[in-house]
Amino acid sequence: MLESRHVEALRLLLGEKGILTAAPDLASYETGARYDRGQAAAVLRPGSTEEVSAVVAYCVRHGIPLIPQSGNTGLVSGSTPDMSGREVVLSLDRMTDGFALDIDNRSLRAGAGWRLSDVNRRLEEHGLFFPIDLGADPRLGGMLATNTGGSRFLKYGDVRRNTLGLTVVLADEAGTILHLASDLRKNNTGVDWKQIFIGTSGAFGIITECVLNLEPLPRQVATAYLVPRGDAEVMPLLRAMEERLGSYLSAFEGMSANAISAALNHVPSLRNPFERGEVPAYVILAEVSRSWAPREGEQSLDQVLEAVLAEIWESEAAPLADAFVGPAHEMWALRHALSEGVKHSGRLIAFDLSFRRGDIMGFCARMRAELPALFPTVRICDFGHVGDGGVHFNLVVPKDDIVAGDADFERRLRDFVFKVAVEDFNGSFSAEHAIGRKNQPYYDLYTARNIRDLAAGLKALLSPGALGAARFG
Amino acid sequence: MLESRHVEALRLLLGEKGILTAAPDLASYETGARYDRGQAAAVLRPGSTEEVSAVVAYCVRHGIPLIPQSGNTGLVSGSTPDMSGREVVLSLDRMTDGFALDIDNRSLRAGAGWRLSDVNRRLEEHGLFFPIDLGADPRLGGMLATNTGGSRFLKYGDVRRNTLGLTVVLADEAGTILHLASDLRKNNTGVDWKQIFIGTSGAFGIITECVLNLEPLPRQVATAYLVPRGDAEVMPLLRAMEERLGSYLSAFEGMSANAISAALNHVPSLRNPFERGEVPAYVILAEVSRSWAPREGEQSLDQVLEAVLAEIWESEAAPLADAFVGPAHEMWALRHALSEGVKHSGRLIAFDLSFRRGDIMGFCARMRAELPALFPTVRICDFGHVGDGGVHFNLVVPKDDIVAGDADFERRLRDFVFKVAVEDFNGSFSAEHAIGRKNQPYYDLYTARNIRDLAAGLKALLSPGALGAARFG
Repeated sequence: MLESRHVEALRLLLGEKGILTAAPDLASYETGARYDRGQAAAVLRPGSTEEVSAVVAYCVRHGIPLIPQSGNTGLVSGSTPDMSGREVVLSLDRMTDGFALDIDNRSLRAGAGWRLSDVNRRLEEHGLFFPIDLGADPRLGGMLATNTGGSRFLKYGDVRRNTLGLTVVLADEAGTILHLASDLRKNNTGVDWKQIFIGTSGAFGIITECVLNLEPLPRQVATAYLVPRGDAEVMPLLRAMEERLGSYLSAFEGMSANAISAALNHVPSLRNPFERGEVPAYVILAEVSRSWAPREGEQSLDQVLEAVLAEIWESEAAPLADAFVGPAHEMWALRHALSEGVKHSGRLIAFDLSFRRGDIMGFCARMRAELPALFPTVRICDFGHVGDGGVHFNLVVPKDDIVAGDADFERRLRDFVFKVAVEDFNGSFSAEHAIGRKNQPYYDLYTARNIRDLAAGLKALLSPGALGAARFG
Repeated sequence: MLESRHVEALRLLLGEKGILTAAPDLASYETGARYDRGQAAAVLRPGSTEEVSAVVAYCVRHGIPLIPQSGNTGLVSGSTPDMSGREVVLSLDRMTDGFALDIDNRSLRAGAGWRLSDVNRRLEEHGLFFPIDLGADPRLGGMLATNTGGSRFLKYGDVRRNTLGLTVVLADEAGTILHLASDLRKNNTGVDWKQIFIGTSGAFGIITECVLNLEPLPRQVATAYLVPRGDAEVMPLLRAMEERLGSYLSAFEGMSANAISAALNHVPSLRNPFERGEVPAYVILAEVSRSWAPREGEQSLDQVLEAVLAEIWESEAAPLADAFVGPAHEMWALRHALSEGVKHSGRLIAFDLSFRRGDIMGFCARMRAELPALFPTVRICDFGHVGDGGVHFNLVVPKDDIVAGDADFERRLRDFVFKVAVEDFNGSFSAEHAIGRKNQPYYDLYTARNIRDLAAGLKALLSPGALGAARFG
């Protein structure tokens, strides 16, 4: 509970609807959309950059720790308060004032509280979209603070690549507002400060507004399932596709048999697309897309994809055991069901890893070889973004297993997986969810001392106040 | 001249070929490839990150100011010493040890001393390239320090977008080496420090090594000249092309009549491609490209471009006065001759500006309206990257004009152009050449006080030693 003098002062700054203190009102802000649970001292809901500045200044001056919260859809406890009941949630959910579309510039200036789905719904009539494709439906501020990538990174890149500018409030005694909200694509006139706030979990400042690059909406899409002959054929297959499809290729997603089976079991309406229902060990979902409407005299994208697959099929390397083009919505429906399917197949311990692309299959093979002896009841249900090196390395234990929900077991499992991923494969322990409380021990462990010291110095320079769930200082 | 005790100490660290002190040896390092002239106390030529670290530590401890120098092809006095004769050039020209291509990952780890042309020559046999297209032939370190964009930004982005990792030496008393050379595309495990060193003119550290994203080499290219009916039709034309060509569109370059005429006059072998030799007021060079070889049953890119232009020609907006597809090498030859042509048509005062795309033509019109009264002998020979908002706003005065070469005249001209660009159009005074000594006054003038203070704090945190031509501290 926040002291009543603070509640009164903050209410003066934000008005009645700007602060919540009653337990039932707090509940939804204390619970992650997918995981996680904490206790908030209060929830602040500013409606403008100036209000954010005012309350941040107040809280820093009074030593009140703030947790910025956006869509709250992350996986690493980055946007929920801890269990102390001392932390105040600063929600961006009312930060939806601005929505300035610049069609000539293909850019959008918007408040950080906008939901991704709402942004794209509004942009549709203009033939544009913000090209980050995610299973969840986050708000922009959180997407920026985690630098999400998603399934079409291969073509469009991550949030960082698609951000032109930001407005940020620093956690200092003045609640300093940094105007970094350029609409320019080319601008090299000093330190590109916005980069510091992207992907750092809100610890260095609160993003209140952003200017985003938009892309022409795809108007033609074709998809195929590709079954590589073996692990060693996945990279030749990717290279062959990139060589033959260039910027048409918009997704190259890998799905393990265990993940596919979990989805098919969980969502009975999904059609099993494989011959005799036998799920192959590893399946690639490849997507090609382009932004124009079909034109006369032009091959359809299905035809293009068929032709490319035929070429690859007959090539000397012969990396394919099977391949078929199919309806995009159906093929993506299975892909999108993986996450929920896996989650429902037992107690899930999720990892968001990334590797050099050529190391993905080797890492998974190593895990298949070593995990069973060390953690016998664990099932590997990996899937991921092979085209950009991202792996959703999901481990599941039966719900009735003695280790399910055991914190010590989970810690040992995490320690082992991260050790192999980071130390042996030079991979990343957080591809697109940033730090949060969950990844904090691994940030502390795997970040070089001089880099951590510099981060602490930068934190002191920018935002000395207690801000965010991640600790850089 | 450097004191002999320093020369001896640095020779011990680098060996005989690692240090130059004789005037004739210094000359080429004191002169910019295109502009600029200074005086060096000595030139250091380390051959490894460890050698860079050792000499930087020595120089910081002894208060010797360092100017990192890469290809030295910039326009803003960012890589040459000043006239004091006190500054020591640290050249990257021997930093070409590493060249590790990772084909599966489509990435290259290379020393910062590699020339862009050499990199791409080596990559060609693998069907890959580093997709930054420039008139000059810089080395990688300088490309990173200026975050160059070039003519194909529209499709591939700038150096920042295509950088996966860096190794950096800080200008502190230890010559600290920061290992930021990740090969990963998705990695959000803390501050993305490499972003600080990209585009900041070498002031925050010396980039010694980099990991770059590579792209499949284009195997088909088609180009057209488009003549918009007027300034107001340029943006509708760009939008129509983007809508109909998506990621095929790899360049959309604007060329003013004055720039084209200067090129045609300077290079007599260029064919005048316009009807009756009449150069239109403004011409767009549009390029489409794709990374695969021609396939049977597929329209050629020339056909695709013809079809798209026909569609646009007949569209209701009718933005075109003329348009014709032609040989890519010939169309680019004219485009690439603009810079030299303009330079030879008089005394050049060059500006590297950028705007929201929709403001480019408005800015140029404003200049055409106002410059003649204020600076009567100035001729505007602008061209630029309309697709990304970049404008090479070149002004030329006759070589025999009394103001040619007059520093005060040039300063007043610069002040005026930058004032309109930055204050009235929210543009950038440095799109892709960063700061250097030439842009320093405008950094000081147009950067908000709190941002400059933060930059000074960051400089003190990272590299307190005197490093680079730009002053952030």
